[in-house]
Amino acid sequence: MGTIAQGVYKHLTKKKSALEKEFDAKYELVKVCDLDFTKALELGIPREKLTKNALDVVDDPEIDIVCELIGGVNAAFDFTMRALKNGKVVVSANKAVICEKGKQIFEASNFESYFFEASVGGSIPIIKVVREALVANKFEHIYGILNGTCNYILTRMANEGSPFEEILADAKKLGYAEANDTLDVDGFDTAHKAVILTYLATGKWIKQSQMIIEGIRQVKQQDIKWAKENGYSIKLVASVNTRFRGKKVFTSVRPALVARDSVLGNVNGVYNAVAVEGDLIGTGIYIGKGAGQDPTSSAVISDIFDAIKYLKGGPKIGDLCEHDDIKIADLEEVKGVYYVRICVKDKPGVLAGIAEKFARHGISIELMEQSKHDEPSKAWLIMITHQTNEKAIKGLFADLKKTTVVQDNPFVLRIFE
Amino acid sequence: MGTIAQGVYKHLTKKKSALEKEFDAKYELVKVCDLDFTKALELGIPREKLTKNALDVVDDPEIDIVCELIGGVNAAFDFTMRALKNGKVVVSANKAVICEKGKQIFEASNFESYFFEASVGGSIPIIKVVREALVANKFEHIYGILNGTCNYILTRMANEGSPFEEILADAKKLGYAEANDTLDVDGFDTAHKAVILTYLATGKWIKQSQMIIEGIRQVKQQDIKWAKENGYSIKLVASVNTRFRGKKVFTSVRPALVARDSVLGNVNGVYNAVAVEGDLIGTGIYIGKGAGQDPTSSAVISDIFDAIKYLKGGPKIGDLCEHDDIKIADLEEVKGVYYVRICVKDKPGVLAGIAEKFARHGISIELMEQSKHDEPSKAWLIMITHQTNEKAIKGLFADLKKTTVVQDNPFVLRIFE
Repeated sequence: MGTIAQGVYKHLTKKKSALEKEFDAKYELVKVCDLDFTKALELGIPREKLTKNALDVVDDPEIDIVCELIGGVNAAFDFTMRALKNGKVVVSANKAVICEKGKQIFEASNFESYFFEASVGGSIPIIKVVREALVANKFEHIYGILNGTCNYILTRMANEGSPFEEILADAKKLGYAEANDTLDVDGFDTAHKAVILTYLATGKWIKQSQMIIEGIRQVKQQDIKWAKENGYSIKLVASVNTRFRGKKVFTSVRPALVARDSVLGNVNGVYNAVAVEGDLIGTGIYIGKGAGQDPTSSAVISDIFDAIKYLKGGPKIGDLCEHDDIKIADLEEVKGVYYVRICVKDKPGVLAGIAEKFARHGISIELMEQSKHDEPSKAWLIMITHQTNEKAIKGLFADLKKTTVVQDNPFVLRIFE
Repeated sequence: MGTIAQGVYKHLTKKKSALEKEFDAKYELVKVCDLDFTKALELGIPREKLTKNALDVVDDPEIDIVCELIGGVNAAFDFTMRALKNGKVVVSANKAVICEKGKQIFEASNFESYFFEASVGGSIPIIKVVREALVANKFEHIYGILNGTCNYILTRMANEGSPFEEILADAKKLGYAEANDTLDVDGFDTAHKAVILTYLATGKWIKQSQMIIEGIRQVKQQDIKWAKENGYSIKLVASVNTRFRGKKVFTSVRPALVARDSVLGNVNGVYNAVAVEGDLIGTGIYIGKGAGQDPTSSAVISDIFDAIKYLKGGPKIGDLCEHDDIKIADLEEVKGVYYVRICVKDKPGVLAGIAEKFARHGISIELMEQSKHDEPSKAWLIMITHQTNEKAIKGLFADLKKTTVVQDNPFVLRIFE
C-alpha cells in the first residue's frame, strides 16, 4: 500500500460503477499484502482482507489479477513468477524488476499475461502505443525525457539560475526528489526505462553495462547559460537508436542540448516525453506526467482493463517478441555532435594543449569559447565539436582526466538534433 | 485505391510476414473496389480481384474486414451499414461519415466492430489512447491542432511574413492544400474531428450547428506580428470543453493565440497535436503527422490489428457509450480572453465609439493598441479583452459589423492559456 497502490485502490473504489460499465466486468478487491497495515486500514480496507504474507495473494485461487506495486527486484520477481505460474495475470509498475528480470518474466507470462504500462513514462501510454497503435512501424529511434525529478531540477536551474546542489536540496524538501537521489539524478531510473524501450523497439534485452549512462549531477549554471544564449534547453535524454548498418541498437542516457524551439525543448518540470521515429509515422511525440499517484494509477488501471480483456478470452493485446540476433552497436558507430566544458588553469599554452588532445582523437572543433571562472587562476573552456563518435569522446575524456592543466571533471553534453 | 488505400495495400504487402507474426494471424487481400482500375493494376493487384461494384466487397462471405477508404458521406454510409449488417468488421479513415452518421454506424456495429483510428490526427493514436489507455479518466478538456494544412499555412506565414493568399496558393502548388480549400481552411475538417473527439470525451453526438467554427482565412500578417511581439504563435485550435456546471460540453474550432514557449505553440508545419486533460493524468499531449499516405496507413493497419483481435473472439477493444443527457453549454458559459482586431476609419471619435461598443456588451479591455494601416485613411485597432464569454463576443461582432466606421471584417482570436 505505497503511494501508487493507494491511488489505484482509491480510484477503483471511487469509480467502481463507471469503470465496471467501461470494463464490461465486475471487480472486487480480494486481498492486500503489506508489512504495515496502517495505510490500508486508514483507507477503510477491512482487516480480514489484509495479510503480511504475499503468498496469501499469489497462491489464492480466488484471485485473477495481481498488482505488483512493491518495487525493488528480488521479492517482486519471486512473487511475480509464482503468480504467473499460478495462472494469474500480473500488472506491474516496477521498472527495476523488468530491467533486471524482464526476459524470464515475459517468457513465464507467455508474452501475454504480464502488463507494465506504468513502468515507463507514468501517464504516457507509450507501451500500448508502441505495441499496438504503431504495430505497422519499424522503430528507428525512440528517445525522450523519462525522469520527472531530473527534468524538474533542470527546469528550475534554468528558471532560477541557482546551482544544482541548491535546487536538489529544495526538491528533496518539496518531495520532488528522494532522500537517496542516486537512482534519479545519476540516470539509473532513466536507464531502467530505456532498457524497457529498447526491448519494445527491438526485441533485445540489453544490460546497463552495454549502455552509456550519465546523470545531471555535473550540470552547472555555466552550461545552462551557454544553452540559453545559443537557443537550447538542457534535458536528460534517453536514446534507443537502431539507425546503424546491420541489425544493431545503441542505448544511452545523457544530458543533452535540445533546441529550445523544438517540442522536446519545451517539455518542462515534472513532465516526461517520448519521441518515436517509425518508418511509417515519421516522428510521434507523447507527453505527460511521468510520476505521481494519480497519473501512475491511470496507467495501472488501464493495464487492469487489458488484463480483464485478456481474462475474458481475448487474444494477446499486442505483440512482444525476442530478437537475440540484434547486436549492440560499437561506440565508434554511435555518431554525434557534442558540447564539451573543461575547467583549466589559466596560463599560456593551455589552449594549444587541449586542442591537441581533441585532434589526437580525431575530433574537430567547430567552436571554442573561453570564459571567466570564479577563481581567477582558472578559466572555462567550451568546445562544440563537429560530428564525431562516442569512442572518440570516451578516449578524449580519459585523456583529459589525466592532464594536470584540467581542473575538476570535464563535462559533455550531446547536442540533440 | 486512393492515396491511403494504396499505402495500406503497399505496407500490408511489403511487411506481410512480419505483420502476420505480430498479428498472430494470416491475412489476404480478397477484393478491391474502385471505379478506375489504373492504380490497382499499377500496384500489381490481379484483375480478378478488382470490381467496380462495392456490393461485391460488402456482400462477399469470404471477407472478414472491409476497409472503407472512400471518403464522403452517402455511399460510404450505405456500404458501411451493409457491411456491418453482413457481420463484417469495418475499418475507416472517414471522418465526414462518422461526423454525420456516427450514431447509426456505432449502433449498427454494436459499439465494437467499427474501427476509426485514422479519422482523427492521422498517425496520432488518439482514439486508442482515449478509449483504452486513459479509461480511468474523466475527460475535462480535449483540444489541439487537428488540420495539417492550416498548421502548415500558419507556420509558413509566421516564418516568411507573406500574406495568407500567397502561401495558400503555393501550398496548393506543392500539394499541401486541396484545390477546393474550404474543407481545410475554413475549419470544417477540424470540426469533423472535433465532433468525433466530443463523442469520445462525453458520449454525446453534437451537430456542427451547435459549435463555433472559424477558419484561418482572415488571419493577417498584422496578427502574426502582434503574436510574435507578445510571445505567441497562432494555431487553429479545436476545443472540446466539459468544464461547466452540470453535465455540459462545448466544442469550438477557432484560430487562437498559443504561448510560443508552450508545447502546442511549437507544433509546426504539417504536424497535429492533441492535448487531453483528464482527472487522473492531468495533461497529456500527443503529437504526430496528421495526414499523408504512410502515417495514415499506420493508423489503418493498427485498426486492422484490432479488427483481427476482435475476430479472434476478443472482447470489445475499448468502451464507447452514448450519453444523450449531456447538454450543450450556453455561449454565455463559454468563458475566454480574446484578441480582437478591427480596421477603422482614422478620424476623431472612432476609438471612443469602438470602446463604447465593448462596454455595451460588458467586455472590459485589458489592452488597446493602434497601428498604421497601409491605407492612410484607415488604422488597425487591436484589443485584448479581460475574461468575457462567447455570447458577448458574438454580440460585439454583430454590432461592429453594422458600424460604418469599421472597415473590413473584424477578427477575433481566442487567447489559449
